Amino acid sequence: MYNFDILIKNATILTMNDTMESFENAYIGIEKDAIVYLGTDKPKAVSKEIIDAKNNIVMPGLINSHTHSGMTMFRGVADDLSLMNWLNNYIWPLEDKFVTEENINIASKLAIAEMILSGTTTFNDMYFFTGVTAENCKNIGMRAVLGEAIINFPVSIKKTSEDYFLEFIEKYADDDLITPSIVPHSPYSCSEDLLKRIKKLSDEKSLPVHIHISETIDEVKMIKEKTGMTPVEYLDSINFLNNRTIAVHCVHLTDNDMNILKKRGAGIVNSPESNLKLASGIAEVPKMLNKGLTVALGTDGPASNNNLDMFEEMSLTVKIHKALNNDSTIMNAKEVLRMGTMNGAKVLGIDNITGSLEVGKKADIIIIDINKPHLTPMYDPYSHLTYSANGSDVDTVIINGKIILKERKFLNFDLEKVMLDIKNISSEIITYKNNGMK
Amino acid sequence: MYNFDILIKNATILTMNDTMESFENAYIGIEKDAIVYLGTDKPKAVSKEIIDAKNNIVMPGLINSHTHSGMTMFRGVADDLSLMNWLNNYIWPLEDKFVTEENINIASKLAIAEMILSGTTTFNDMYFFTGVTAENCKNIGMRAVLGEAIINFPVSIKKTSEDYFLEFIEKYADDDLITPSIVPHSPYSCSEDLLKRIKKLSDEKSLPVHIHISETIDEVKMIKEKTGMTPVEYLDSINFLNNRTIAVHCVHLTDNDMNILKKRGAGIVNSPESNLKLASGIAEVPKMLNKGLTVALGTDGPASNNNLDMFEEMSLTVKIHKALNNDSTIMNAKEVLRMGTMNGAKVLGIDNITGSLEVGKKADIIIIDINKPHLTPMYDPYSHLTYSANGSDVDTVIINGKIILKERKFLNFDLEKVMLDIKNISSEIITYKNNGMK
Repeated sequence: MYNFDILIKNATILTMNDTMESFENAYIGIEKDAIVYLGTDKPKAVSKEIIDAKNNIVMPGLINSHTHSGMTMFRGVADDLSLMNWLNNYIWPLEDKFVTEENINIASKLAIAEMILSGTTTFNDMYFFTGVTAENCKNIGMRAVLGEAIINFPVSIKKTSEDYFLEFIEKYADDDLITPSIVPHSPYSCSEDLLKRIKKLSDEKSLPVHIHISETIDEVKMIKEKTGMTPVEYLDSINFLNNRTIAVHCVHLTDNDMNILKKRGAGIVNSPESNLKLASGIAEVPKMLNKGLTVALGTDGPASNNNLDMFEEMSLTVKIHKALNNDSTIMNAKEVLRMGTMNGAKVLGIDNITGSLEVGKKADIIIIDINKPHLTPMYDPYSHLTYSANGSDVDTVIINGKIILKERKFLNFDLEKVMLDIKNISSEIITYKNNGMK
Repeated sequence: MYNFDILIKNATILTMNDTMESFENAYIGIEKDAIVYLGTDKPKAVSKEIIDAKNNIVMPGLINSHTHSGMTMFRGVADDLSLMNWLNNYIWPLEDKFVTEENINIASKLAIAEMILSGTTTFNDMYFFTGVTAENCKNIGMRAVLGEAIINFPVSIKKTSEDYFLEFIEKYADDDLITPSIVPHSPYSCSEDLLKRIKKLSDEKSLPVHIHISETIDEVKMIKEKTGMTPVEYLDSINFLNNRTIAVHCVHLTDNDMNILKKRGAGIVNSPESNLKLASGIAEVPKMLNKGLTVALGTDGPASNNNLDMFEEMSLTVKIHKALNNDSTIMNAKEVLRMGTMNGAKVLGIDNITGSLEVGKKADIIIIDINKPHLTPMYDPYSHLTYSANGSDVDTVIINGKIILKERKFLNFDLEKVMLDIKNISSEIITYKNNGMK
């Protein structure tokens, strides 16, 4: 006899486990933070809360494996510009002025809310004032891998002290929702000495290292001029890469780069919408998958996307590679849904707790409402999630065993207040822009 | 003193007119089917109904310039297959059996509902039993360009008689919502004699001609082997092309093809999501625009997309060409929104009545709710509509002066009934598939 805190019944369940099992008219039992029952036989149980998932799809929460959550305040502030114009004349000056602990407190709350509303239950963040983002995750109930962005070249961008960062790592060392990480921005913006110190710290504390690699062709050229090597070859030459490396973007990799990343066990994250919008290029995802690399997906920051909807990333990934390879069978719906869930958990090193629906894992679950014209009729749930759905179809979100969102309403979070707060920040940003960024 | 049937107030209005005017805190006055007032000065008026569009974006309805509405019943029935496997073993046998007047009546209702819910107020359709689709448009209040698909090669696919088609043209010759068209499927599936007869009829009746052209490289090869010419050159050689031609897909055009289409005044429709998903390729949209061609967008049918959301087509179009051309300035948000509205009206030959918000035009208006996390804050409405929004953000839809959708609820249409009806069709399709399509 079970004592479920939550019972989900009548569910079409896509587990996303290693054999990609799925079930019809099935049950999930949750006790405290974990899944304790999953199957088609009705469990003998007393249940505090019952969710009837008839006509819904139940699947693991999506994993946004790369974003900059604090950038919601800059969403759409500047678009359709060349990358250098965008960075030099808009993003960097705005970050210099508006990235404060107070603003990040608001901006990261908005990002977390937006991600939950579109089915993300874990995100991997690269930004500043990580402490407040972590507190927001704890208060709202979001799972995250968080680290303070580190840049020391050509200028040192420091929003917090080294102590802030070390204290953060200690504070969240054994947290149930937060995994601390180390986040050097990229091989071109961190000195070799800094990268080596980061690697040492990551080895000592067994922390994941989250880094942009080979996002643009200019970056590859820059590193080649400096070192004679590609960014991946260079990082490998200083023994930087291992199975805790989260290598983000990887738009411009050589075959040798892919082989090195595979050999070192590094995880890959691609952000196709951002890569298109910023004209960075298109990563060779099918080739990476063929080589046995684990490739996950991320939205990138909301200034370069401009939303945090993982459904869009999955849909774009599977479609774009069909056309570029002149082969509509080269990727499929199941494969890309796995990239958005289990591959994310693997790349972030948390596949023991999330990424699939399995007994013993934490209950990170999303329920998608398919009683909508664009999801009707349904022949194949994998197809619908990949090709027809969007983030607005997510109805209910459970993270770490707690119901956070129900019928698209937050149970314990004041969304209207945060939207009002961010509008106040944007008013200041508009004034600043109108005054010529002075 | 005006007597408005509807007054929209407090609106952020994007007119999409030829100078792309926009207004803040502005008013739109509607009398009967038309816009009679638009401006920032408060009009002196008595208004039967007032819509407060505070915190909303008001713009012309989107124009889905190419779809196959009856295919909603086949949405997601087969994916991730090679094109020929998909067509020969799934789509064509299913169409042979399930495309009946009764089923199209249901499937086209679902398509119309889905399009309205995602902000489309006009669609250009290529399918069968056009008569029932037209009646559904009339009953629901949707604007459409409709014609019966014609195929006579290698086999003749006929769902209706020639009389059916001629009667349809007569019946809707002066309709306020329906524009009849002639719809030869493609240069490879219609004989030269048929194409010439179609051209003659279209000249006599001044009807638009809606045709697939150069969708796949195989099609181009096939026509080249037969005629020594590209599909566009071939059609031009038989005097088929003019300013009533709606040339759909145009994925594989030569420079000369583009020049011919420009010279003849033909309109182009591209369906990028379908072109990616079916691995057809990627049309050179920026080059076409540079040559002064009018390029509109369509979703293609829901079996090859798999939804009818025009926001996705716009977002993909502007982003993909940035990456492919290594230039993030090559297309921009305003340009692609114009493709999704005014360019559609021009290509369909109905820009005198729709496609922009202007006094004297029919009131085809959508209101987008931006009070959502993924649309907050807002610096630029064009950016938000292109990069951040999706069809689910559409709140209110007015077509031909009538409010069809309000707060995402249909005022005079039983959506639940249609979804139930289409599920019954899909049950039959599943049984048929499970029996090996026999």
